[in-house]
Amino acid sequence: MDANIRDAANAIATQLYAQRRDFHRYPEQGWMEFRTASHVAERLSQLGFAVQLGQTVVSERARMGVPDIQTLNEALARARTQGAVERWLPALEGGFTGVVGTLDTQRPGPTQAFRFDLDALPIVESTEDDHRPYQEGFHSLNQGSMHACGHDGHATIGLGMAELLCQFSSQLCGKIKLIFQPAEEGVRGAQSMVEAGVVDDVNRLVATHLGLGHASGHVICAADSFLATTKLDAHFSGTAAHAGGQPEVGQNALLAAAQAALGLHAIAPHSKGAARINVGQLHAGSGRNIIADSALLRLETRGATADINGYLESRALEVLKGAAAMQGVSVSIERVGAASACAASPELVEKIASCLAGYSGITQLARHDITPAGSEDATSLMTRVMERGGQATYMIFGADLAAGHHHACFDFDESVIPLAVGALLQIALDP
Amino acid sequence: MDANIRDAANAIATQLYAQRRDFHRYPEQGWMEFRTASHVAERLSQLGFAVQLGQTVVSERARMGVPDIQTLNEALARARTQGAVERWLPALEGGFTGVVGTLDTQRPGPTQAFRFDLDALPIVESTEDDHRPYQEGFHSLNQGSMHACGHDGHATIGLGMAELLCQFSSQLCGKIKLIFQPAEEGVRGAQSMVEAGVVDDVNRLVATHLGLGHASGHVICAADSFLATTKLDAHFSGTAAHAGGQPEVGQNALLAAAQAALGLHAIAPHSKGAARINVGQLHAGSGRNIIADSALLRLETRGATADINGYLESRALEVLKGAAAMQGVSVSIERVGAASACAASPELVEKIASCLAGYSGITQLARHDITPAGSEDATSLMTRVMERGGQATYMIFGADLAAGHHHACFDFDESVIPLAVGALLQIALDP
Amino acid sequence: MDANIRDAANAIATQLYAQRRDFHRYPEQGWMEFRTASHVAERLSQLGFAVQLGQTVVSERARMGVPDIQTLNEALARARTQGAVERWLPALEGGFTGVVGTLDTQRPGPTQAFRFDLDALPIVESTEDDHRPYQEGFHSLNQGSMHACGHDGHATIGLGMAELLCQFSSQLCGKIKLIFQPAEEGVRGAQSMVEAGVVDDVNRLVATHLGLGHASGHVICAADSFLATTKLDAHFSGTAAHAGGQPEVGQNALLAAAQAALGLHAIAPHSKGAARINVGQLHAGSGRNIIADSALLRLETRGATADINGYLESRALEVLKGAAAMQGVSVSIERVGAASACAASPELVEKIASCLAGYSGITQLARHDITPAGSEDATSLMTRVMERGGQATYMIFGADLAAGHHHACFDFDESVIPLAVGALLQIALDP
Amino acid sequence: MDANIRDAANAIATQLYAQRRDFHRYPEQGWMEFRTASHVAERLSQLGFAVQLGQTVVSERARMGVPDIQTLNEALARARTQGAVERWLPALEGGFTGVVGTLDTQRPGPTQAFRFDLDALPIVESTEDDHRPYQEGFHSLNQGSMHACGHDGHATIGLGMAELLCQFSSQLCGKIKLIFQPAEEGVRGAQSMVEAGVVDDVNRLVATHLGLGHASGHVICAADSFLATTKLDAHFSGTAAHAGGQPEVGQNALLAAAQAALGLHAIAPHSKGAARINVGQLHAGSGRNIIADSALLRLETRGATADINGYLESRALEVLKGAAAMQGVSVSIERVGAASACAASPELVEKIASCLAGYSGITQLARHDITPAGSEDATSLMTRVMERGGQATYMIFGADLAAGHHHACFDFDESVIPLAVGALLQIALDP
Repeated sequence: MDANIRDAANAIATQLYAQRRDFHRYPEQGWMEFRTASHVAERLSQLGFAVQLGQTVVSERARMGVPDIQTLNEALARARTQGAVERWLPALEGGFTGVVGTLDTQRPGPTQAFRFDLDALPIVESTEDDHRPYQEGFHSLNQGSMHACGHDGHATIGLGMAELLCQFSSQLCGKIKLIFQPAEEGVRGAQSMVEAGVVDDVNRLVATHLGLGHASGHVICAADSFLATTKLDAHFSGTAAHAGGQPEVGQNALLAAAQAALGLHAIAPHSKGAARINVGQLHAGSGRNIIADSALLRLETRGATADINGYLESRALEVLKGAAAMQGVSVSIERVGAASACAASPELVEKIASCLAGYSGITQLARHDITPAGSEDATSLMTRVMERGGQATYMIFGADLAAGHHHACFDFDESVIPLAVGALLQIALDP
Repeated sequence: MDANIRDAANAIATQLYAQRRDFHRYPEQGWMEFRTASHVAERLSQLGFAVQLGQTVVSERARMGVPDIQTLNEALARARTQGAVERWLPALEGGFTGVVGTLDTQRPGPTQAFRFDLDALPIVESTEDDHRPYQEGFHSLNQGSMHACGHDGHATIGLGMAELLCQFSSQLCGKIKLIFQPAEEGVRGAQSMVEAGVVDDVNRLVATHLGLGHASGHVICAADSFLATTKLDAHFSGTAAHAGGQPEVGQNALLAAAQAALGLHAIAPHSKGAARINVGQLHAGSGRNIIADSALLRLETRGATADINGYLESRALEVLKGAAAMQGVSVSIERVGAASACAASPELVEKIASCLAGYSGITQLARHDITPAGSEDATSLMTRVMERGGQATYMIFGADLAAGHHHACFDFDESVIPLAVGALLQIALDP
Repeated sequence: MDANIRDAANAIATQLYAQRRDFHRYPEQGWMEFRTASHVAERLSQLGFAVQLGQTVVSERARMGVPDIQTLNEALARARTQGAVERWLPALEGGFTGVVGTLDTQRPGPTQAFRFDLDALPIVESTEDDHRPYQEGFHSLNQGSMHACGHDGHATIGLGMAELLCQFSSQLCGKIKLIFQPAEEGVRGAQSMVEAGVVDDVNRLVATHLGLGHASGHVICAADSFLATTKLDAHFSGTAAHAGGQPEVGQNALLAAAQAALGLHAIAPHSKGAARINVGQLHAGSGRNIIADSALLRLETRGATADINGYLESRALEVLKGAAAMQGVSVSIERVGAASACAASPELVEKIASCLAGYSGITQLARHDITPAGSEDATSLMTRVMERGGQATYMIFGADLAAGHHHACFDFDESVIPLAVGALLQIALDP
Repeated sequence: MDANIRDAANAIATQLYAQRRDFHRYPEQGWMEFRTASHVAERLSQLGFAVQLGQTVVSERARMGVPDIQTLNEALARARTQGAVERWLPALEGGFTGVVGTLDTQRPGPTQAFRFDLDALPIVESTEDDHRPYQEGFHSLNQGSMHACGHDGHATIGLGMAELLCQFSSQLCGKIKLIFQPAEEGVRGAQSMVEAGVVDDVNRLVATHLGLGHASGHVICAADSFLATTKLDAHFSGTAAHAGGQPEVGQNALLAAAQAALGLHAIAPHSKGAARINVGQLHAGSGRNIIADSALLRLETRGATADINGYLESRALEVLKGAAAMQGVSVSIERVGAASACAASPELVEKIASCLAGYSGITQLARHDITPAGSEDATSLMTRVMERGGQATYMIFGADLAAGHHHACFDFDESVIPLAVGALLQIALDP
């Protein structure tokens, strides 16, 4: 069967490459994947999947880090000018840009889910001559946004898998859900799909990522060293005053932010495992001779476990509030992203390892990967599946890269797309 | 004679108002006063003044806070499209936007100088209906720049004075220099004219400002409570690193800046008088999950005397360098502005007070003013004049204001223009 | 009359020197002046003054910086072994060591008060050969305490004045109150006498100090540049933890104190006059490998006016509480001292200046003195007198010093004692 | 043989208990173990060991955290009054309180070394009724010092082992070195014995500790989770000034220390493993109204590896020096302790595990122990042995405790002494 699958995947490779390049040309950042999601919905619908999208699959109150309404609307307007499929847009409007396609085989069997993410990064894509997307004319047309992490590939793999699921539907059982998630960057989107119940009926969840430092042909069954993380924005608000003339009138938001930055980095480590905190950005003040009345800190915590991350987050809140109190300023703290730590289900890892053993095109197959301390919000979906008794894992499909993830020259070996499509189908066929 | 002067000034009032509104419509920020300076030079030349401009009157190495060359060139290009007088532009190119007009009476007598400043502020002008410049159609056409401090008025007073000096030239003796200074905002420009020697031959210097909280008709002979000040930009440069994956590799510029901000505000006060320090802006970091490799502090020191300000500045340098060393980052510190504290010459104050006593239109005449703790770089010109044995003062011509200086709705009672022109001529006639 | 007074004062000089040296030998720190106060009370009583002491003249709730009960009791026990007058001790017990002696002339007239302070400093007195108190055998017998500010002289001047008031009583009118105040060091005692109502009936108050940088024979009628001040002790209390084994359990009082120290020094200055803040001591932690569970800050604020000092104090409280909150620790803040700023009553200054003009022995008489920024709690008594319509001043009687105030080698020219006694009598005689 | 050994150890148990209680009665802190070391040397000598002590086995320049000479001399004088063996004292004088006893069997074989530590802690021993040492009259006679970690037991085990080595000498081969190390507390002493070459010829090193949370009868072959550590004292030295009168003159050591404390705790963690930093004590300033001219920080770094600890230490130096520079003060940094991280040699662990399997009295035998993050300077000796090709481990002999290590009520089940003596002999017999 392996060979059939591989052939089927290769047969649609050209079409998939074109699809990926189309997504690459029109990158859309988190919660603004209007064009992308509408194309995904349209294709799933054409293939006969039951399509859910918008608030049905994205819980409004669980969304994090959503842009303001004007930004959302401008993105929607742009999507319209760039060929979005109009009939899906009303459901997506306002930033509910998740899509779920379900294939019900009507045969008994488990519910399997596969998760793909849709969003791009706030990066200006390279226009150097040796940057292939530029060379071959499929670079970003949306200045300041770029698919520099491979989510264009992920969405394409999802659509390719949809196509093959139809071809092989007679051999499938149970239900297959293809989950297309918005706003993975900044770990903002998964929780909103969790709370909309998207994986509540799932017995087996496979999330995937391409690249991540692994060569083309290498496949990892479980990347399970992701750290739990929380992303916070803290806005300090004080009182401006002329620094020469009336210094005593000011309530200094810049000093509050400086005290907070030091206090945050000085939070004690944890005896139970890795703990990380970073204030990555601090912006304060409006003029040299004015006592600053506003300051913004962008920070994140990460922990080897949810408990450690929870410890850091609660200490961070103390520090932020105390620092504000020191200067008599107010602080509002927004949780703009969050993800769990999550180890894969051992049985599922074993099953996938057996299932893919000998799959042609996979030159190296590893059960586990010890990766550096990153975060991923697929873990929130995985955690929910496991809490309800299911199994889950996070797979990596290696791909040679032109430059590292999040780099302006990022590009990947597109042959990963048919390989992943075939391998995931193989897994789906062996529930 | 007073009545003649007043009549002469009033006779050109309409023309002066038009001139002021022209300047108001085309505001140019410091070192970019290409159109403004070219018009000043052209008019002085028409009136028969000897005109010096560019590097002759602006020392390159003493300029502070000069924009980058691209910004300068864009401003120059804009000036060309807005009616700058082409023949003067080559000398001004690159940001040497000072002009000096000299009238040599060929009669024995002292050299008197009058100083006016030319530059606008980085403020978006109001387009509210009750903002007169908007209402009457002379609001800023250069979005983001605005004459919100009255320098459009100052330049106009200077040109009006030039006109009357010609009319009354037979009654004058010695030399009269009209100094049109760039980049007063941020106290960046005066020192460059000092070091070009512009006031080295001056026996008597009168600098002026309109408004400053005084009503129309009120005149102050000496505003001498300006604080000495220094403006510093500190750029910290460290090493970026992924905050989760390799925190030990980073060299954290954001923390250096935070430590510095606290240390700067904690510099001890001075027993000899007022001391002020302010970090008005702090901008650090590029991404939430990246250890910040860059940070910028914009700060200023102010002291009741040059010694106190010097104490603050040298302590600030220690703090900045030490904070950088704490984090293993480098810091480059740029002096982007500076001004002295300077009390007026008592004899000159007395002389002006006598000279203007009973001048019609002046409803209140005060020798001294105790103003809040501001700074002004005319003090640098005044200091040089006094160091070389001359006398100097800083006068205020009151003017009713629509809103405070540096406010988006700033506007002033234009009748201050002919009043000041006449009063200054009166002073010039009595050397 | 001047000559009579001077002769009368000189006649008791030898006795006064002996008295001063007795006080010098048995120095007692604030709230522990048991021996000193008992001797004062005894002598006033012998001279026929109505004597009030203990809680009648010292309000318990307004005392600041009182030692713990064990320290008080040890001091009382020591006083008993050093010749305290037993019958007064019960009233003084527990640290109510103020004494007021009143002479009611039964003649109409104002109530005049003169204030003297009693306490010594926590300084180890010099035993160098050229230190006169050591040389002549009257150095401190209470190791660690020393009259290094001249309060032994002040108490002696008060007793000398009492003696002469009796001699000249037939020439006096109204009432004369001699106020002997405890705990001036640290500005801890005056307010307790204010709140006990000691000066509520006073029409005229003269407080005095010897030395302060003025030579013997120089007299200042009004030293009125004292700064308002508040002394605070802040005790942070957190949770200890093994820094290697369980860092996350700790609540770090040392870091709270460090944040607070920086925040306190960074409090903005005040546009209305001098503002000073100092954290003079920080003691935190018990072991190198233990997260510190306690920290103590000793700090003070000073302001040119009570408003400025109040601004600093309220900002300091914010900083301390915020810093504690940042680390999740608690903080208790004790007000251990306070004094007002207070300018002398101009009429009283004039009156004293006339009264002492030509007084023999006074070689230089000045109305006002601009002294560096110190504090004195006599200002609290002065403020109360003025609030109730009376007049008050703070006089300095110059005295050549062997070393500066608060120095281990401090000693003063004792001739200031009879001079001050006579001059104050002169003032008392001219109400 | 096991039974013979056990019987031999039990036969001297009473004598060993007496010895331990003698050591307990006369606790001596690090570098001051004059009485203890002299008794050890005397006993080793009596038993026929070749004895080395003083500078032969303690490198002067590698000692850390040595008390000042007066403290050392007072301790030596006290030792003389408490029965030190005079003839060994000259070699120990000045704090060279290490002893090594060597038994050369004259038979071929490896050199085995066993390490014991001698020093007590700065703790006031409990005098509560239920504290056995107090109850039974062998509590500390040296107020402020206490054997609260069990080193009295360690030294006794070493002497007991010496005794049995003599009894069983005919069955031994190679050389046996018994190393009695000073100043383990604060990890100050081991490195000085390393640099004196004490273990340069050692093939096998066994260091031991009793208790550490393990019950009597439990034995751990390798406690190898010790963290590398460095102990630093940082002395900041600035300039005092009157905080009210001349604040600008001060150079504030307290603020430098506060900045440093924050900066130290904010040092970034390390991706390769646990990293800890703690400022355990901060003492600064002399008076509330004086700008502090001195400050002391006591701090430590710890890392899972020597590299991580080295990273922390070098960052700490940057922070300390930078903080000093910020305030214009100087800082001197003293390295008062250091120890490596060190995992045991796997072969040796295996060998010991086999050797002790079934040893009567050992109720539980574990190869490894995961203990919380403490430090121990035996690791420095172990590291040197391994660097030169030898094997080393750190064993724990469990003992029921009355209270935790470093507690004023610490006491241990003395039966651990003969058990350890026998077990170590068993190991020595099986090289």
